[in-house]
Amino acid sequence: MTSETTYADWIAVDWGTSHLRAWAIRDGAVRAEASSDKGMGGLAPEAFEPALLELIEPWLGAHRIPLVACGMVGAKQGWVEAPYSAVPCPPVGEGAVRPSVNDTRIDVAILPGLSQADPADVMRGEETQIAGYLAKDADFDGTLCLPGTHTKWVQISAGEVVSFRSFMTGEMFALLSRNSVLRHSTGTGWDDAAFEGAITEAMSRPEALANRFFTLRAEALLAGLSEARATARLSGLLIGAELAAAKPYWLGARVVIIGEDRLAQHYAAALTLQGAAPETIDARATTLAGLTAAYARLKDMP
Amino acid sequence: MTSETTYADWIAVDWGTSHLRAWAIRDGAVRAEASSDKGMGGLAPEAFEPALLELIEPWLGAHRIPLVACGMVGAKQGWVEAPYSAVPCPPVGEGAVRPSVNDTRIDVAILPGLSQADPADVMRGEETQIAGYLAKDADFDGTLCLPGTHTKWVQISAGEVVSFRSFMTGEMFALLSRNSVLRHSTGTGWDDAAFEGAITEAMSRPEALANRFFTLRAEALLAGLSEARATARLSGLLIGAELAAAKPYWLGARVVIIGEDRLAQHYAAALTLQGAAPETIDARATTLAGLTAAYARLKDMP
Repeated sequence: MTSETTYADWIAVDWGTSHLRAWAIRDGAVRAEASSDKGMGGLAPEAFEPALLELIEPWLGAHRIPLVACGMVGAKQGWVEAPYSAVPCPPVGEGAVRPSVNDTRIDVAILPGLSQADPADVMRGEETQIAGYLAKDADFDGTLCLPGTHTKWVQISAGEVVSFRSFMTGEMFALLSRNSVLRHSTGTGWDDAAFEGAITEAMSRPEALANRFFTLRAEALLAGLSEARATARLSGLLIGAELAAAKPYWLGARVVIIGEDRLAQHYAAALTLQGAAPETIDARATTLAGLTAAYARLKDMP
Repeated sequence: MTSETTYADWIAVDWGTSHLRAWAIRDGAVRAEASSDKGMGGLAPEAFEPALLELIEPWLGAHRIPLVACGMVGAKQGWVEAPYSAVPCPPVGEGAVRPSVNDTRIDVAILPGLSQADPADVMRGEETQIAGYLAKDADFDGTLCLPGTHTKWVQISAGEVVSFRSFMTGEMFALLSRNSVLRHSTGTGWDDAAFEGAITEAMSRPEALANRFFTLRAEALLAGLSEARATARLSGLLIGAELAAAKPYWLGARVVIIGEDRLAQHYAAALTLQGAAPETIDARATTLAGLTAAYARLKDMP
């Protein structure tokens, strides 16, 4: 079989709690892309290989293809555990783990996440995005901010992750706006001024958050507070407190936000309001760049 | 019909979002008590009267019996809306509302809640507990703390509610311990030292709460943090931030906690740690005392 008949040189996989995304790479370019909602959160150990094959089957041939995966697929409850690398360390280095695979057409490597002893912290998936960013800006010295369910602030120097902090801000916003009494008062609308006011308020009085949340409900009942203003204030209160706590990460540092979605834009707006000048880059492309860097590294290993 | 054949002189009802509780009162004493899980949260307007009758039917006779109810039953989504009384005002005064009732054996009065314009706040049910406390200590000058899903701190002077603040601490603890990633690390255990450490930590760095929450998950993964310690720390972080924000309510003031359950005990321990000397009283008896005070007042009205 010649290389002309091989569909992909390798396959990149981003496998999180609630999503599975794969790219077929040929001659350094994306030849195909596929995704499903079969995240690791809903899979028993024996269901991982079928879920993956279902997605990438069209790309497989007689040749065994390398596959590099990052994310919660490597957690203790995932396909196979890829033990954390402890910071300070490069974002993606040693420690890829190979699950046992029945199908002989793929050779799977799962990348480890990063851990920090004190204060205790962990990440899985973000380390690959960090590697993707550093692949294009190797000399970066500053802070990467990765907004999400558990937003990460990451200090980078000399190609290594020096320290990081996770905040449950995104998960708290989801729980409060969907599952708490505030679900009656929040929605999909937005109001920039309300968001900015809440950022300032939370930065100066972060201890009052649990009261200010209830105030949203009371203002909706008593004064017709709009859904758009309530939603933006809830987000602003949470992100404002986070910015106060993460100040050592962004104050006077170069800050790059990995993400360009709505949440990432809110972080950018909040930081800009504090006088910072954050840059933003696309998260999905950064993930793929990180998987590509990891593949190149694994290929060079004996 | 003589009074001997009347089962109850009147009926007291506490009707919250998730519970319905009734007492048959005769000659100033509780003759019977009943409760069900038919809280207002799960009832359509037409379902209120049947849910009530199902519970109190055995107490009814030929004589029409007065019934006084407090709680979310008087909310906009309740049986009939009893508009809020605005503070400063006595906890239970004017404004009881009578829903239309088909059964001629009962005469129902629903007590209004309290509202505050700035900062916006509301309560429904707690005002009756406050009235119950003041029925026994009319000259009280200080702070009442009512722990719960939405804990209230209430400033009392000269028989009136002067101001109050609600905190979503209880609801946040429930959401974080049951519905967030922390559900894997928390449980029913408890550790006093961990709770006390978290109180101190949150009071000094309340802005870092969303990070400290995630730390519980990371410590469980990396260092085997016990469920008991994680649970107590989560509670301590939330209550500690609340104490920092509510300081004007408890510092140098006489503080009475209405409640003697586990949550009330946590508030008492946290306040004691800060040098306060909170008293505690039974919440259910206080509710009944408040309904009794409201009944006496309604009876005297023309």
